[in-house]
Parts: sequence; C-alpha cells; structure tokens
Amino acid sequence: MAETLRIALAGLGTVGAGVLRLLEDNGELITARAGRRIEVVAVSARERSKDRGVDLSPYAWEDDMTAFAGRDDVDVVVELVGGSDGPALALARKALAGGKGLVTANKAMVAHHGLELARLAEDRGTPMRYEAAVAGGIPVIKGLGEGAAANRIERIYGILNGTCNYILSEMETTGRDFGEVLADAQALGYAEADPAFDIEGVDAAHKLAILASVAFGTELDFAAVDTSGITRIRSADIAQARALGYVIRLLGISDCDESGGERRLFQRVAPCLVPRSHPLASVDGPTNAVVAEGNHVGRLLFEGAGAGDGPTASAVVADLIDIARGNATAPFSLPVASLEASKPADPGNRRSRAYLRFMVADRPGVLAEITAAMRDAGVSIESMIQQGHPDDTDGDPVLVTMVTHEGPESSVTAALNVLDGSPSLVEEPLVMRLLG
Amino acid sequence: MAETLRIALAGLGTVGAGVLRLLEDNGELITARAGRRIEVVAVSARERSKDRGVDLSPYAWEDDMTAFAGRDDVDVVVELVGGSDGPALALARKALAGGKGLVTANKAMVAHHGLELARLAEDRGTPMRYEAAVAGGIPVIKGLGEGAAANRIERIYGILNGTCNYILSEMETTGRDFGEVLADAQALGYAEADPAFDIEGVDAAHKLAILASVAFGTELDFAAVDTSGITRIRSADIAQARALGYVIRLLGISDCDESGGERRLFQRVAPCLVPRSHPLASVDGPTNAVVAEGNHVGRLLFEGAGAGDGPTASAVVADLIDIARGNATAPFSLPVASLEASKPADPGNRRSRAYLRFMVADRPGVLAEITAAMRDAGVSIESMIQQGHPDDTDGDPVLVTMVTHEGPESSVTAALNVLDGSPSLVEEPLVMRLLG
Repeated sequence: MAETLRIALAGLGTVGAGVLRLLEDNGELITARAGRRIEVVAVSARERSKDRGVDLSPYAWEDDMTAFAGRDDVDVVVELVGGSDGPALALARKALAGGKGLVTANKAMVAHHGLELARLAEDRGTPMRYEAAVAGGIPVIKGLGEGAAANRIERIYGILNGTCNYILSEMETTGRDFGEVLADAQALGYAEADPAFDIEGVDAAHKLAILASVAFGTELDFAAVDTSGITRIRSADIAQARALGYVIRLLGISDCDESGGERRLFQRVAPCLVPRSHPLASVDGPTNAVVAEGNHVGRLLFEGAGAGDGPTASAVVADLIDIARGNATAPFSLPVASLEASKPADPGNRRSRAYLRFMVADRPGVLAEITAAMRDAGVSIESMIQQGHPDDTDGDPVLVTMVTHEGPESSVTAALNVLDGSPSLVEEPLVMRLLG
Repeated sequence: MAETLRIALAGLGTVGAGVLRLLEDNGELITARAGRRIEVVAVSARERSKDRGVDLSPYAWEDDMTAFAGRDDVDVVVELVGGSDGPALALARKALAGGKGLVTANKAMVAHHGLELARLAEDRGTPMRYEAAVAGGIPVIKGLGEGAAANRIERIYGILNGTCNYILSEMETTGRDFGEVLADAQALGYAEADPAFDIEGVDAAHKLAILASVAFGTELDFAAVDTSGITRIRSADIAQARALGYVIRLLGISDCDESGGERRLFQRVAPCLVPRSHPLASVDGPTNAVVAEGNHVGRLLFEGAGAGDGPTASAVVADLIDIARGNATAPFSLPVASLEASKPADPGNRRSRAYLRFMVADRPGVLAEITAAMRDAGVSIESMIQQGHPDDTDGDPVLVTMVTHEGPESSVTAALNVLDGSPSLVEEPLVMRLLG
C-alpha cells in the first residue's frame, strides 16, 4: 500500500467536524477505496477550546492556518473556512504555492478566484478540487467534468440553493407567505440568521458560475450572472402558477448563445415556472438537482442533498479519495489555457414565455393601459387573469397576472419600461420565465 | 501533450457506430479534456461491407477481433460485441492478458465474468472500465465508485431497463394490456424482436449485480439475483396500484442484511409498487434512474437515457477519457482482493408490504378461503378489493387484490403455499412488493 495521504483541515464548523466524523466512521472503507490511508495530521479554527463533539487531541493545532502551507507533514490542505476572500483565499494561495493539494467547499472563493487558483495548481502540478462547493453531496462536478466529458454540453440548469427550495416548496404546500416561511426556516436551521446570500440568489449564482465553467469550458465569470432572488414572490404567484400547471423554483440556468458567430455565455439565476411534469418540479425541500443536456448523452439529472454536514463531508472526502488514487482531472475539466474567455450573452435576444404579475389600482382603464403597452412592444399575451375582490372593496389594489407567448425578452422589457412610473401600478411588476 | 491513446474497436452495431460518430463530432473537445488525442486505429465486426453510415477507411480492419490483443499500435480495446461468453469474452481476456486496457458496454459479460476480468486487469496493471454497461449514458458507476466513495452505501435501487419502463409507463398512460404495448414497443424499436432478456428481468439483473458489487464492495454474484419480470402484469394491476397511490416499476433493489452477525447480500429484480411522490414514480419511458443511499451523503439520484447509441457512446468515451487522463480507479472501486465474498440473504427474513392479485372463481367461499390462509400464516391485510362483474356474468373469474401490512415475506409465501393448487384460484397469484 502506498504512503498515507496527510491532510491539514482548516475550519471546524459543522462541515469540518463532519469530515472528521466521516473519516472516523468509514475509515477502513475509505482506506480500501483510496488504496492508502487518509489521515488528518493538523487542524485549525478560530477557537481551540470550543466543544465540537469530536476529539481534536490526535491532531496538531495551528492558530494560524496559513502555517499549513509550510508543514512538511502535510500533502493536502482542506479549506472549510468560507468567504470569498480573506483568510480562506490567503490559505488557498499559500497552500497551492507551497505545492500542497487543495480541497475546498468554498463556493464564493471558487466563483471569484477559481481561475487564479486553478492556474496556480496547474503551475505547481498539484491537485485542486471543490466538489463540495456545488450542490453539496451530489457528485455533479465529477458527473460533468468526467462522466459527461465526451459531450458538448448544450444547457445546464438546476436547483442550486436548498434554502430557497425549502421556502418555495413550503409556500406551495402551506399557502403561507414568504416572510412567515422564511422565519420558520430560520428557526429550523434551513436558513441563516442573515439569509440575504441565499434568498437573493447569490449563493446559487456562485454555484452556477462554477458549473458553467466546467460544462462549457469557459472561464469563470461570476460577475456576469444575471441574478435575482425569491423575496418578491407571493403566495398568490404560487397559486397562479399552480393553476397554470407549474411550480415556482429558483433555477440557475446557463447555456451558450452561438447565434452571432461568436460564442456568448448566458448565466441566470431567477425564480422560474417549471412544468409540473418536469423532474425538477418534484424536487422539494432542501434538495438540490442539476440537469445537464449533452449533445450525445441527452438529458442527465443529478439529485441529492445540497447542504448539511454529512453530504458536504461526503463530497470533501470523495475529493480526497480521488487525490489519493492519483486521479488527475483538471480543476475545471480542461487545462486553464484551454478555457475560453467568452463574453456574456445579451438576455434581450433570448426567446421565452414569461409570467408577469402586476399589482394595479382598482380603477377603469388600467387593463387597457397594460395591454396597450404589451401590444405596442410586440408582446403577445397567451392568458390573463384579473382577480376581483369578492366583496368589491373599492380602491384596494388588485392582482393582474398574465402569461405571454414565446418572444424576445427585450420586448417584455420594453413594455415594462413604458409602464414604469405609471400611477396605475402600485408596485414594480414581477417577471418570471417559464422553463422551456 | 502526451502521446495519442490508440483504440481498437470491436463491434460496429449502433453503439460502435455511435462511438465513431461521437469521437468525430466532439474530437477537439475530447482531446482537450483528455489531455491527448484518442484515436481509433483498428476496427472489427462480423461484416466488413455493411453500410453503417460511417466511413471505415481511416481504420485498419481485422476479420478476427482477437488479433487486436497482438497489435503493438493498440493501447485500449473497446468491446461492443455483446454476449456473456463467446467472442466477446475471448477478446476481453486476450486484450487484458496482452496488457491492453479494456472498455466494454457488455453488461452480460461483466455480470458473469467481471471479477475474473478485473483480477486479470489488476495483475497486468491495465485499466478496465464498463460505465456503458449499466444505465447507458448515466455516469452511475463513477458516481458510486468515486463520487460516493466515502460512504458506506446502505441501499441501492433503480429503474435499470428502459424497455420495461417504456412498456409499464405506456400501459399506465393508455390503459392497454401488456401484449399490445410490447408489440408496439417492438415496432418502435424500444424492444428487441426477442424481448425475453428485457421483459423477464435478466438485463436488469445483470446491471443490478454490477451495481451491487461497486456499491457494497462485494464480489459479483449474478446467479444470486432473485429475478422476475413484467410479463404477468395486467392493466388491472396498474389501475389498482394507481387507486392506491402507486405506480408499477420494474426495480432492481440491493442492500446488505447484517442482522445475523454476518453480512449477506440481498439482490432482487421485480416489479414493485412505487409511491406517486417518489422520484422514481415520475421516471417514464425508456429512461433509467438509480438511487443510492449513503451513510453520510443520504439519498443520491442519477437519471438519464438508459440506452441508445448516443448515450451509450457517451459512457464509452468517458471511460476512454478517464484512461487517457490516467485516472486509475479499480474496476469495482476496490482492489479485487478487498471485495467481500458475501452469501446471499434469505428474502424470507425481509419485511415488506405486499400487493397480491388473485384471479378467482366466482363462487361462494373463495374469499373466506384466501383470507383464512392469510390469517393462518400471520399475514395482516390492510385493504382488499374484489371486483364484481357489472353485468354479473356467473362463472367468469374475478379479480381480488389486497395490500398487506408490513410483515415477513416468508409469511406471504407460506399463505400462498397453502392456497397452491386450490380449485378456487384460476391462475397463480401475482405478488409485488411496495417500495418502502
């Protein structure tokens, strides 16, 4: 049996403790699969004395985790500290520069600095892996970068944030409104005390940018992800969607637009209407799921737990087993020099069907104003519902929803620009696309 | 860039031609991902002159494919001939013995001889891969053996035969009976002229035996798979299942029974009742899907096309890319010596809920006879339906279905043994388990 693979672990939160527990629980199996022992030799975290339910006495302690990079008894650094910059990035850079392998679960850092880190890993001939950064325990980076490697991927999309999916499926099941369900999710530990990163779509955007790079062989471009969250969705939207045969899911969607003779990368995170019959429609609760469409394999779907200590630790240790086995796939499946620096696609050129929701003043002429703006912009309306007040309470705003026929997104934008500032609209309209 | 990986391809049916097309279509991308060119140098098939829609002139031709093993210009042999023994096995053995890598899509051969071939590969230090043998284009061997490698897998189950799934979902949608739908499936190319391997569950059993070995680290034991097919399912069963909130799917299910202090491997292929809310219930048509439950990652699901030239070629070429990259996972994820020779579990000890369907003579006392047999064997009935004739045609057999409470499978068997040969039963009862 080959030499032990020696690990230094930075960050002992739930995932860090989960990795230690997993290595202990399944140690014998992991050694057999990896062909050698995987042994944690050193750990680091903010507080040494905190009770984490795991015994830290077998491991050397470093107050300064960047010291891992200088330790001769360490082969791979596992970074579970989090944050796109700061200590995590300093550690990752130092570790790779020092010739150590890097395994990380840090989606923000990979989304912002993945290309730089991959270049560093390539220069030093040392492995870098981040399966746990995308969709928790689901081996989707491996599935795309190895399992589907023979394919030109045509589109990738999925449910990438468990918190949002939990909130949306709870809203659907219970009929309650966003704020209430969010508060419950926080109490249950499904949402953070500061939930902005999740509910505003940023976390999903991190993951989408990483997936897009692996799927399309393009350079990471997180800044170009067109991102919106779920905070404006009301129970009325969910009810309307249901009546139309859809459910609402926060999706990350990416494809390549090759129409202009030049490949342009489209990346969007937004709530979408998903047909009830689509596999993603039945993905409920904190589960994640990713669909990849390859030019020979067709549609692949990967589904599983998107977060949690067990699933995330499973992905971290899978990366370690790969490194122990000597599996040497490039971090983004292609050498850095082969990744294409593609420009962002213009969403205006995309064709889709849209769901539009207006809160309008209950007075004559409002519908005429909205429909005229649509007509003038060339938007064709497939169906429209105005919800009357059962008790005809004059003056209260009423809900108008419509679904458009397929057309350029720019037309919908043009129509909404005309309506912008109209006293008929009580609040900004909500636009969601239908997954086609 | 490293040297070209040189391939010899045996078998030029739809999959073989699909591999040549895929290598041509996506050649540049595949070279970039693999880090070197993957080039077919020689081919072999039964008939040289047949038109396959691909140009064979760039490749050397061998009438006898086992000659590949002796060619110095070949690194990897791709076996797409099929059949558990005969020429395919002779080729696989010779290729590995000659130090060539082996990639195969041949589930029958791997199920029967996989262990011997893996041992040979290991002895010669040469790679052996068979992703395409299980669930077509879905990277599930990689997903289990690498992606979920850190986990003790607790159960694996799935839809492993597209033909059966197509037939069952068509029966469900159209209400038509088995024979009619099978004939249509044959006309559409979803079922073979001789469909026995598919509809009797043998093909799914091949795949299940392979999956079980990778998932549980056990030696392949195809002979121990408890196999039944879908030929006895009637549209009435599908309607009854639907009324109870279930759909019928042919599932392969495997887990380890550790109750007796000794690990025993349970492997079964059988039609099962799957709750409507389960992700497998919405897998329709020729799609395959595999669920793996890991002790840390929880439930993973992999779904995609289970057959067809494109998906199967995608898996074959993914294996070639892995070999080109030098990725060196053992064929069954563990070294052969570490695979456990576990005994088959006794299904009688398993606890499940069962659906039972009887065709009975329409005369007094029949229900009393059946229910007494159940009571005497300790089987507790949860619900029972006897379908009356709307026009009360005396003498025609009638359908009696029941669902039992959870209990040992041996009790149901005991009850049916008592009823065996009873003149009240017009045909052998059908038993299907409910997926728990």
